[in-house]
Amino acid sequence: MTLTHLSDQGEAHMVDVGDKAETHRVAEACATITMSRAAYTAIMEGNLKKGDALGTARIAGIMAAKRTSELIPLCHPISLTKIALTLTPHEPAASDTACEIRIASRVECIGKTGVEMEALTAASVAALTVYDMVKAIDRGMVISGVRLIMKRGGKSGNWRAGQQALALEDTSESEA
Amino acid sequence: MTLTHLSDQGEAHMVDVGDKAETHRVAEACATITMSRAAYTAIMEGNLKKGDALGTARIAGIMAAKRTSELIPLCHPISLTKIALTLTPHEPAASDTACEIRIASRVECIGKTGVEMEALTAASVAALTVYDMVKAIDRGMVISGVRLIMKRGGKSGNWRAGQQALALEDTSESEA
Amino acid sequence: MTLTHLSDQGEAHMVDVGDKAETHRVAEACATITMSRAAYTAIMEGNLKKGDALGTARIAGIMAAKRTSELIPLCHPISLTKIALTLTPHEPAASDTACEIRIASRVECIGKTGVEMEALTAASVAALTVYDMVKAIDRGMVISGVRLIMKRGGKSGNWRAGQQALALEDTSESEA
Amino acid sequence: MTLTHLSDQGEAHMVDVGDKAETHRVAEACATITMSRAAYTAIMEGNLKKGDALGTARIAGIMAAKRTSELIPLCHPISLTKIALTLTPHEPAASDTACEIRIASRVECIGKTGVEMEALTAASVAALTVYDMVKAIDRGMVISGVRLIMKRGGKSGNWRAGQQALALEDTSESEA
Amino acid sequence: MTLTHLSDQGEAHMVDVGDKAETHRVAEACATITMSRAAYTAIMEGNLKKGDALGTARIAGIMAAKRTSELIPLCHPISLTKIALTLTPHEPAASDTACEIRIASRVECIGKTGVEMEALTAASVAALTVYDMVKAIDRGMVISGVRLIMKRGGKSGNWRAGQQALALEDTSESEA
Amino acid sequence: MTLTHLSDQGEAHMVDVGDKAETHRVAEACATITMSRAAYTAIMEGNLKKGDALGTARIAGIMAAKRTSELIPLCHPISLTKIALTLTPHEPAASDTACEIRIASRVECIGKTGVEMEALTAASVAALTVYDMVKAIDRGMVISGVRLIMKRGGKSGNWRAGQQALALEDTSESEA
Repeated sequence: MTLTHLSDQGEAHMVDVGDKAETHRVAEACATITMSRAAYTAIMEGNLKKGDALGTARIAGIMAAKRTSELIPLCHPISLTKIALTLTPHEPAASDTACEIRIASRVECIGKTGVEMEALTAASVAALTVYDMVKAIDRGMVISGVRLIMKRGGKSGNWRAGQQALALEDTSESEA
Repeated sequence: MTLTHLSDQGEAHMVDVGDKAETHRVAEACATITMSRAAYTAIMEGNLKKGDALGTARIAGIMAAKRTSELIPLCHPISLTKIALTLTPHEPAASDTACEIRIASRVECIGKTGVEMEALTAASVAALTVYDMVKAIDRGMVISGVRLIMKRGGKSGNWRAGQQALALEDTSESEA
Repeated sequence: MTLTHLSDQGEAHMVDVGDKAETHRVAEACATITMSRAAYTAIMEGNLKKGDALGTARIAGIMAAKRTSELIPLCHPISLTKIALTLTPHEPAASDTACEIRIASRVECIGKTGVEMEALTAASVAALTVYDMVKAIDRGMVISGVRLIMKRGGKSGNWRAGQQALALEDTSESEA
Repeated sequence: MTLTHLSDQGEAHMVDVGDKAETHRVAEACATITMSRAAYTAIMEGNLKKGDALGTARIAGIMAAKRTSELIPLCHPISLTKIALTLTPHEPAASDTACEIRIASRVECIGKTGVEMEALTAASVAALTVYDMVKAIDRGMVISGVRLIMKRGGKSGNWRAGQQALALEDTSESEA
Repeated sequence: MTLTHLSDQGEAHMVDVGDKAETHRVAEACATITMSRAAYTAIMEGNLKKGDALGTARIAGIMAAKRTSELIPLCHPISLTKIALTLTPHEPAASDTACEIRIASRVECIGKTGVEMEALTAASVAALTVYDMVKAIDRGMVISGVRLIMKRGGKSGNWRAGQQALALEDTSESEA
Repeated sequence: MTLTHLSDQGEAHMVDVGDKAETHRVAEACATITMSRAAYTAIMEGNLKKGDALGTARIAGIMAAKRTSELIPLCHPISLTKIALTLTPHEPAASDTACEIRIASRVECIGKTGVEMEALTAASVAALTVYDMVKAIDRGMVISGVRLIMKRGGKSGNWRAGQQALALEDTSESEA
């Protein structure tokens, strides 16, 4: 019995990384959750029925990063050496503008594959957790701008989100 | 030893739903992943090194919905009765515009709490999986418009994303 | 945005069981692992380097049954009310015949869907665990006869493996 | 093939709860982690390298309660309706006495089996998480007094830790 | 307190692989699921209510391989570098013969222990998933021939299923 | 977008171990569960309704050790190379004294971080499993003395529980 059909087009498989070098890999990703002023104020004043939204979201993101290979079918299991998340509130001056929590993640490993998916998963799950904590107040919240900021290490080298990509959403322009 | 401090402000806990009625709950959510024409074409022509992107993403989203309570710290475990996802390619007429895969999820249960987080998690993880399948071609892909479309059932009744919320992103206007 | 394409042919989804009645469901499954006399003797005499093979396999099967919906993509999560496994050694009279461990599982729930997959998963993972415990002695062991014995409850009613099905393998004939 | 051996003595199995009534079940458990004054002060002043110890432990305990049936082999999967934890610092007057964090958990469900294991698992994992957060300062911390405080509901009725049990450790006497 | 009893006979433990060399490990396994012509035709024509059976099974097998150490109690956690599965339909000429889907898996890692269990788990779970996808049509399907084809790397060297082992089932003879 | 706030005080994150050396790490931990003579006798005579308590607890502890990084939020995922547990019954001479099961765990890896949490988690979950197996007889059992015995390897070097720490509980004195 041969396995020659394994690499046939169209059939999902976890690609071989056995020959790749173990290098220091870094990836940073981000996400933004946009919400009503009422939801934002509840988070800031800490009077949510479910408890501290940003602290809970940070831990959820960290824990999700470690389980990325269980969630994303063709991701390789990776022994992460660092996971960090920041959740930064952003309140616009004009009272009629939507408020935001901006999430940034940074994941590192010494390994054979990159940690882009881990960084994106951390940011996504942290944003979903913010939604869960506040949804009793605002079900219309929107998560957007989930994207890679940079990655470093590995055969394909370094990569950083360009101006074009960042311009897709105005939420990230001021930070670029 | 009393537990009187359990409901103190600021302390995360999984809220009591024991007294809620078991009703039929439905939630629909969506997400959009925007990508270069090259990435889009690779998906459409099915010649990705990792295999069928949309089929893999659909299954990833379904499986993630079932694990929502493991990912979102204060979500209640729920016995889902239905999970479905659609991934719809959307290619603009003008060749210089970004292409999209639009993801819609629908989750149902007969239970004491809603399934909004399950629907949002399904859509998010499906979008992340599309990213993973195509990232060798385009690392600049952006996931946006992750939001609830509607929910039905439960004490808080029915809810549907309003025009204002939908207008936050043009990707959804034509479908409203 | 409508979800009318959700039931399109060829797209995996977790089918709707919301309207099904909650009934008492039972399923029994089995599996057989065939091995050399040396491997069999090591199990029976309890002198495996890894420890008690049958006891470990029994627990592995029980725990796997509870996680079936995480393993089988379109399985519904079910609150099982009972899981039991037996592992029965079967040593042939003739010394040149392969020895066997026969595994039988029984799973029950009060729910909207059957527990066939849970019973089959329990039997399979128990058999795989026996393999793991003894593989240092015999890597040529073969797991076969993984099949449903009976199921009860639900709209499709009762089902029992017929003579034809059982005759597919001689390992089960004598037990029918 | 019969399953008559399933209830044989000495063979682990998940006992049948199919015939039990669905009642409101409550369980409260507790645990204490004893530590040096230096470790205690670091927690209280919030200057741990790893971040907020008590908030992280509370979330870890809540999430662990939901996964009890994955950890404890013969536990039934249960849809919990409420999980809450308190972590109460306890600093003795005399400076040469060990400091403590006392953990109390409360878990509820409407189900066929009790939630004692869920409450005990929540308290244990919260205590382990406190250890993890502070272990760089004090590796000699000790977790003790992990026990059930009370349980309510189900055929065996109500139960409350008696004076004898509570007197096993002095940490709980003052709270009885 | 000493741990001298740790290696006592009969007590399960995860054996020490700390001193083993990190080498390139490969394992191939297989499984066969036998079904009625009606079930087979439904898979081939892609008109199953649950969706694409073979694609779903392939992903389920890949994801299960990554979780082998969670399922098999004494398996070491391993960072897999490659997972691939093929599912090959096999329709006999005579219309009264049972049809088959033959599953082959290949798993690789650079590590201290072999990946036999990962390859066997991938094949088993893929077969169980095929069962789940088609069980509404045929509950009498049988999974057999779950066995190791070859393994490479590690102290015990290379191993390949011999003629004798392969002859246990006729399904593999023509492929040897 | 910079991540300069990542190391802010009070924000949980998984600390960077990327620069640490891969060394051989060992940790031993212990726990004690105290119970009534009736519960103890049931364990010893093997006539528990749920089956073999100590064997089940041993496997539960081993499996929990492998999942430590899923349970403890800021634990790094580690590829363990060895896990072993002993459960030692301890029956006092005087019939009015509480009986005990003493649990000892030993975990090893070749890695960048220590395995203290894995050893403590293994001992804790084994103790919780004993509780689960016997709770129908004695709900007043108490788990205590969950602590690190020793750890070896890594930058912080070797550590062993001192006399002072051990004297906190009399259960361990005789073994020191």
